[in-house]
Order: sequence, then C-alpha cells, then structure tokens
Amino acid sequence: MSVLLTLNAGSSSIKFSVYPAGDGAALAHGQIERIGSDEGRIEFNHGNQQTRTDVGPVDHAGALNRILDEIGTHLKRSKIIAVGHRIVHGGPDFDAPQQLTPEVMTRLAEFEPLAPLHQPHNLAGVRAAMSAFPDALQIGCFDTAFHRHHPWVNDTFALPRKYYDQGVRRYGFHGLSYDFVTGRLAEIDHHAAHGRTVVAHLGNGASMCAILDGKSIGSTMGFSALDGLPMGTRSGQLDPGVLLYLMDHEGMDSTQITNLLYKESGLLGLSGLSNDMRTLQEAGTPESEQAIAYYTFRIRRELGAMAAILGGLDTLVFCGGIGEHSTRIRAEVCKGMEWLGIQLDPAANAMHLSVISTGRATVRVIPTDEEIVIARAVRAAL
Amino acid sequence: MSVLLTLNAGSSSIKFSVYPAGDGAALAHGQIERIGSDEGRIEFNHGNQQTRTDVGPVDHAGALNRILDEIGTHLKRSKIIAVGHRIVHGGPDFDAPQQLTPEVMTRLAEFEPLAPLHQPHNLAGVRAAMSAFPDALQIGCFDTAFHRHHPWVNDTFALPRKYYDQGVRRYGFHGLSYDFVTGRLAEIDHHAAHGRTVVAHLGNGASMCAILDGKSIGSTMGFSALDGLPMGTRSGQLDPGVLLYLMDHEGMDSTQITNLLYKESGLLGLSGLSNDMRTLQEAGTPESEQAIAYYTFRIRRELGAMAAILGGLDTLVFCGGIGEHSTRIRAEVCKGMEWLGIQLDPAANAMHLSVISTGRATVRVIPTDEEIVIARAVRAAL
Repeated sequence: MSVLLTLNAGSSSIKFSVYPAGDGAALAHGQIERIGSDEGRIEFNHGNQQTRTDVGPVDHAGALNRILDEIGTHLKRSKIIAVGHRIVHGGPDFDAPQQLTPEVMTRLAEFEPLAPLHQPHNLAGVRAAMSAFPDALQIGCFDTAFHRHHPWVNDTFALPRKYYDQGVRRYGFHGLSYDFVTGRLAEIDHHAAHGRTVVAHLGNGASMCAILDGKSIGSTMGFSALDGLPMGTRSGQLDPGVLLYLMDHEGMDSTQITNLLYKESGLLGLSGLSNDMRTLQEAGTPESEQAIAYYTFRIRRELGAMAAILGGLDTLVFCGGIGEHSTRIRAEVCKGMEWLGIQLDPAANAMHLSVISTGRATVRVIPTDEEIVIARAVRAAL
Repeated sequence: MSVLLTLNAGSSSIKFSVYPAGDGAALAHGQIERIGSDEGRIEFNHGNQQTRTDVGPVDHAGALNRILDEIGTHLKRSKIIAVGHRIVHGGPDFDAPQQLTPEVMTRLAEFEPLAPLHQPHNLAGVRAAMSAFPDALQIGCFDTAFHRHHPWVNDTFALPRKYYDQGVRRYGFHGLSYDFVTGRLAEIDHHAAHGRTVVAHLGNGASMCAILDGKSIGSTMGFSALDGLPMGTRSGQLDPGVLLYLMDHEGMDSTQITNLLYKESGLLGLSGLSNDMRTLQEAGTPESEQAIAYYTFRIRRELGAMAAILGGLDTLVFCGGIGEHSTRIRAEVCKGMEWLGIQLDPAANAMHLSVISTGRATVRVIPTDEEIVIARAVRAAL
C-alpha cells in the first residue's frame, strides 16, 4: 500500500510516523534517539506492539536508514510515496506548507542563523530523505507558518528597522500544534472557534498563542525558541541587560550563553534538580516547589497579556505533555483568574475532561497532534 | 535659612531642586546639561524667573560647583544642611533611603555592574556633594527600593540559582515616581489606594508597576533599565535570542549591543526620526505612526500582564511626561480595554482631568514628583 512518512528531526533524535497515503490514522510511529552518541536507540510502535532496539553510533542519514529498515520489517508491502517534514523556521514569507524544491531548500538554509539549534538538523533530515526517496514528494511544514499574519506590532521589536528587514521578527513557534488545536476546536465548538482563544502549549518547549477567529494574532515566543514562558531547560523571558551582564561581568561568549539559556536554565536551573515536571511535582523540595510556582506564575502573567491582545478571553485551551496531563499545573494556572471569567471545575480537571471549567470563559484540554497536521499537508499536496 | 538640596546625577546632566529644610514647596530647581562636552549649560528656575547660562566644559564636580554658585546668587542667605541623592540601584537589600556613610557607599559601588550606565554617575554626584558639603547630611534614595518586597516569582529569572544569589533579579525601577503616585492616590482616593492599581510611568524612560494595597508586587522593568516597555531610545522587551544573533551573525560585542539597545532603539529606532513623542505625533509619517502604534500596543499588552499579577484592575494611573500630557497616547492605551473595565471619557482625557474614565475601573492622571520624595526622605532623616 502507498504510505506517507512524517519526520521531525532534532539535534539528537528523529521522530517519525507512517500514515496511509489516502486517509486514516497512523499505522506506526516511533523515534530514534541519541544520534551522534555510541548509544543510538530506536523505538517502534505498531499496533499494540512496541520494540526498542540499540542501534549503536549513527548519524542523521544512518538514523533515517535505520528507520526505513524498521518500517520495511514491520510494514511489509508499504511503499513510501511522500515525506512530510517538520521544519522549525519558514522565515518571513512561508505561511503554508511548501514542496521542498532545490530553490525552497536554498531559501530555508538562509534561515539557519535564525534558529541555529534546530534548522540545520531539520534540513539534514530533509536531505537524508531526498537521498533515500529520490522519487517521493517532499513537503516542509513550518512551526512559524501559523503565525505569519500577526499584526505588525506583534511581529516587530523596537530596534532600528534594518533588523526587521533582515528577519529579526517575533515569529512564534509551535505552529503545527496551534494549527491542530484550532481545527479541533472548530469541530467541537463552532461558536468558540470564532471567538477569543488562548492556547497554552506546555510541553518540553512551551508557548502561548492568542487566536482570534481561528487566526494567530500573537504569541509569547518571539524570534527564537528561548523567549516567553520558562521551559524544561530554557529560560523564557529574560531582560536583555542580563545578557550584557553575562558578557561584561562574567566574561561569557555567545556559545557559553547559548548553552546556559537553552540547556541549564528553566525548571532545571531553578530547581537544581530536573527539567521534568513530573519529577519536580514528586520531589516536593523547596526549590522544586519554587520552580513550579515560577512556571505557573509566568503562564498566568502571559495569559493576561494574551487576553489584552485579544480584547478579552472566551476560551483557554491546555495542550502539550504538561498541559494535557498535569492536573496540578492547570489548577495553579487558573487560580486567581476569576477576574478573567475563569472558574475551574476541580473534579473535571482531575479527570482531564474536555471541559474543565464552570465560569464565563471555557477552559478546555485538547490533546494535540502535530504529526497529523503534517500528514494532512502531505495528503493535500498528493 | 536652612535648605536641603536634591540631586539627580546622570551621565551628562545633573538635575537639582532646593527645598526649605523644614517644610514647603521647592524654592528653586533646574539642571546642568551636556556635562563633559564643550557646551555645558545651566538652567535655573526661581519663582517665575528662568535663566539659562552657558558654562563651557565641566565635569561632574565642576557642574556641582556651578550649581552651588547659582544657588548662592539666587538664594542668598540659604545654607545647605542636607543633600538627597537619587540613586538608581540600591541592590537586593536597601528597601528604604539610607544615610550615605562610607560603608553604604562601598556597598553601592558593588552594584555598578548591575547598572553600568547610571550607578557610576549617581555615585560621582554623591562624592562631589560630600566634598562640597563635608558637614551636610547625605541621603540616598533608590529607584529599586519601592519594589524590594516583590514576591519571589516576580523577583527571579529562570536561570540557575547562583545568578539570583549574585544579584541577577527583577529589581524594577522608577520607584521614586511610584512612591509619590501611591502616596498621592491614598490622599485623593483612600478606597482605591487599598485596591489593585497599575501605574504607567511614561517618560524618557517608561515602565509599569502593579501595586496591591499600596505595595509594588510587580513591574515591567527587570534587571536593567532596558526591559519591558519600549522607550525613547531603549528597546524594551527583547527575545534573548536576538542578542545571541547580534553576537553570532552581526559580530557585535557588548559595547556595540549596549549602544544599540540603549541609544538607537525604541521610538527612535522604529521611527527612524526621533525619540520624542511630540515630534512623532506631529510628524505623521508611516514610520512614526508605526512607532506610536507599537508603543501603545506594548503598554496594552503589559497592562493585561499587570492585571494578571494583581488578579484584576481597579485603578490605572498615567504619569511621567507622556502619561501626563499626551491625550492621544492615553486614548490609544485605553482603546479596546473594555474587557478590563476601562471606559475612557474622551472630554476628560482631552482636558487632562484627574479622572478620565467612566467605567468600572478608574483611570487617573497624576502628575508625578520624584524630587519631593527625595526631599521628604531627607526631612525625615533630619
């Protein structure tokens, strides 16, 4: 049967899913982790069966070949006719999925300085897939695309204009997730889908998006994947003066600051313990409790900011690993937000129900699915 | 008669006021500008009389002597028995005015890396005054002091904890202005003073403060005078990734980035025309209109964030040069904020009345007076 493959290539992992080319749910999904180390490992989920296999040292091309071997083993007689790629940065222009022609690839490579930790790996994944499937359709789906029609005031920084022109803008990310949630909301609550919605995508990365009548008009994430909410190991919002202080007083260079802000900050930095919310909730140390308090405080603060962008709030949606599974985080975010029309229903919240509120504004939990957004884009192109 | 002198020493200017030591309004005020250039100039206001005199090249000590000459000329028989100094940074501990003993001065010098563009000049002003008046009482008033009892979640960044311990915190500034406005609000509306208040200090610098029951619990300014709202030449909020991009892709060092973010950004950078709001409002170019739109958009956004910190809003106060005088800026900030209980009264706004709203939340204009806050602190110490 003809299938399509979705790929999400990061610095040390590639996540993948296999879908029927025509219609229907994923046939298989999994990931290969620890690329570049001696301990590469592949996880493959097919039906109710999960297998984990050590694969030793592999690079991105080798990892992709290993994934294809696994697909060949488990999904005999499947033929991959198209590949959809999650690409973090589509730059200022791409507001929809693109066929990855040589011209588009050249353009996407120009955005590598805008997302140096993600974009090169994304494009390496595309090149490996092009080499493995020279005849397949290759489609790029961009995390920035959903936000590209932001009003100008939410797209710029207050810098001399030449920086805006050369691409220093508030792009916003997690667009595939917001795209999915927006579509799902339209299915389950047509009226709300035309209103003022804030979606809180709380996962490994985290951001919030202000959505008016189904369209993004603002996001807590800006130019890079650092800004806005604190994350597992990323700082979120930071006074630019702190970076100047780190340069002048601590003598740190950009590599050291990048490492600090992307890998040693956020929940990990504040707790001194872990970047994993579950671990912090179980730990109960003063530092882990403070890290959780900061996390939820910043979400509440930015919820007010997103409501100001929207001119009020009708619907708040939680999604992402933490947003979908942590009763406590949702409760703490909603605490003291009665002024915004939010009244949590503790029992519904504890059961992770679809609607977890009783007040004027509706609070929802919507499990997100970024892979199916990619699959849909590929099917549309086919 | 015994008088006290207040000094506000910046990089290239010293502002001063003279008050009776006991009680009463300022006897005189003025400033010396362009310190360090060949074109130093002193302005002196006394009663209805204003004089402007070229003073040629002076340093901070020379400028102070020139101020004292002018005071001696205009206010004969006055004797300066105390000097109050505006000092931008009181560090993590000083939450009230301090007598400037050698020990306190040593401690304040330690905060120079936290405010490199302001603190050294403030302390230079203190040393010049100590030299000129060895017998006078010297009192320091800190722009950070009003904010020192922020909840921890609004005092920290999501960095490894050692940075908090070494002073990387969300200090907040413009504390003398917020202190004055809070006191004035208590005089004119006792009930509101115990409620949820946001003060927007919109001047050369700009920030907003969330005040609950008379105490600051949050501010848009953080570690440095750069964060939060855009200002005349300062960027305000900026994705930390932008600084990494400027370092890596533009090859800029900290001196160049400091210059860009403090002196070439904000309204000036966006308009390409001026840092002066009056000039921009009169210019009416597309760029100046966009700069104004960004300015008011960010204020609205942060008003929502401050309301979230407070759990709603009872009173919004405008102060500072722009806040007190720009009918248009106040109108644009309040536009679309009905969801927060704000309903502007356009006629009252045009007349700069004390109350300019008709909705549930009260919007006020309160002319601020940072000098009198310093004078009060000196009088209390005397």
